[in-house]
Amino acid sequence: MSKQRCRIGVVAPASRMSPEVAERVPTLAGSLYPDRTPEIVFHPQCFASHGHFAGDDETRARAFLDIANDESFDAVWFARGGYGSCRMAEAVMRKLKEPSRRKAYVGYSDAGVVLAALYRARYESVAHGPVAQDILREGGDAAVARALAWMVDRSPEALEPTVGSGKKTAAFNVTVLSQLLGTPLQPDLDGHVLMLEEVGEAMYRIDRSLFHITSNAKIRRVSGVMLGRCSAITPNEPDFGMSEEDIARHWCKKSGIPWLGRADIGHDTNNKIVPFGLGQ
Amino acid sequence: MSKQRCRIGVVAPASRMSPEVAERVPTLAGSLYPDRTPEIVFHPQCFASHGHFAGDDETRARAFLDIANDESFDAVWFARGGYGSCRMAEAVMRKLKEPSRRKAYVGYSDAGVVLAALYRARYESVAHGPVAQDILREGGDAAVARALAWMVDRSPEALEPTVGSGKKTAAFNVTVLSQLLGTPLQPDLDGHVLMLEEVGEAMYRIDRSLFHITSNAKIRRVSGVMLGRCSAITPNEPDFGMSEEDIARHWCKKSGIPWLGRADIGHDTNNKIVPFGLGQ
Repeated sequence: MSKQRCRIGVVAPASRMSPEVAERVPTLAGSLYPDRTPEIVFHPQCFASHGHFAGDDETRARAFLDIANDESFDAVWFARGGYGSCRMAEAVMRKLKEPSRRKAYVGYSDAGVVLAALYRARYESVAHGPVAQDILREGGDAAVARALAWMVDRSPEALEPTVGSGKKTAAFNVTVLSQLLGTPLQPDLDGHVLMLEEVGEAMYRIDRSLFHITSNAKIRRVSGVMLGRCSAITPNEPDFGMSEEDIARHWCKKSGIPWLGRADIGHDTNNKIVPFGLGQ
Repeated sequence: MSKQRCRIGVVAPASRMSPEVAERVPTLAGSLYPDRTPEIVFHPQCFASHGHFAGDDETRARAFLDIANDESFDAVWFARGGYGSCRMAEAVMRKLKEPSRRKAYVGYSDAGVVLAALYRARYESVAHGPVAQDILREGGDAAVARALAWMVDRSPEALEPTVGSGKKTAAFNVTVLSQLLGTPLQPDLDGHVLMLEEVGEAMYRIDRSLFHITSNAKIRRVSGVMLGRCSAITPNEPDFGMSEEDIARHWCKKSGIPWLGRADIGHDTNNKIVPFGLGQ
């Protein structure tokens, strides 16, 4: 950061954030950076509620634009995932202004929809990484500290270990990427190492999504696939007969996409930062 | 049918069929058509088992080809849905021979993957309709009788009521169509009335899939969308705040696709026949 104090705006394009997060995260930030505590501003929209969402589509889009278009913020941090980003992403992209290009964007899971759209529009500091609400996970301080370390200092220790070897990278939740394929939000991942993680899906769904992803002609131009953690896999009836790694290897082989092993990402506190592209 | 006795081959490209089906369906067929009972041949592969599937990918593909490429069959009938057709569809398409074009194909749900591939390859008698295993549903005789009526006589009474008004039609399970978008199996639905149904998904997933489907530039060239039944919807936390019809109307409006109302299809015994294209 060029200035002393990093200013981070938190918005919730999908599901509502727990109010507790707005208390715990600044306390942690104060203890981690006593001399230059980042200012973390939780947009009131984070606490709004409209059916499944943290406010209706327009409210969520407007809140995102409030922070993204404000020159005084260094980063837009996603409050959490859940579901809903696809309902506001295109409206947001139409109204982003120049200041929005000079900041970082960090999130994962459902937030991947917005990250994809920003990256497609050639935003330079877009990263898969922990969200604010990860502080509520057991040991969640480590996840939030990692996101802060990247937003405040671009700390290399926060990165997924294979990042930075000169190859472009990108990371997505399997289902979220699947649901972007063939839409105007599908990111250009030619030559990228594509890292994929999943949570709360049955094996047959993971298999179907990986069929979908690896059957896409544009996705086949990635330099390879790495599989992150697939957690909280729901029961498959009957037993699927393959692990998530068996499945990923199968579809890589079938599609001709190089299989590059496991990635250190997932819906957990060890979820590492993966900048999109060559990273900044 | 040009000859007296219709010959139907049953295969299971996805999940395993219950053995009971092979007893009950021929009995029903005999009672419905005493003078010209259709011959219903259950390929042994229907009873095979390999993890999640009715035999491994190669076994399922070979069984499909056994029936499809055999001149003596008038129809290929899907034993059931489940999951697995995407694992064998492309292999099948590469090996289909001329006799495969001169027969009907009937199924729905996961079978939509193969129906899409056949329709894309300009097969002329491809239809969404009940599978053999629907006989196990309560009142399932009616569903199976409907599939037989179409395979044996192309009976107009078996059709979804809006079919046959001179417009091309197609029908898919929401999730199954979503998972075909952007792949070489995505069907060309320009100018078609697209009927969609769903089962066993949470509202947020239905919403996400309809975002996906209606955001696809090629799908936007359909003449309109009709929503079939969405059954066994799983709990949404919190309550989604919209019904499946609200959701479908929302995405139609947003995408500019004409909303054409409800379709008489779904994962139930009232599931009607929807031929792909102008129907034969």
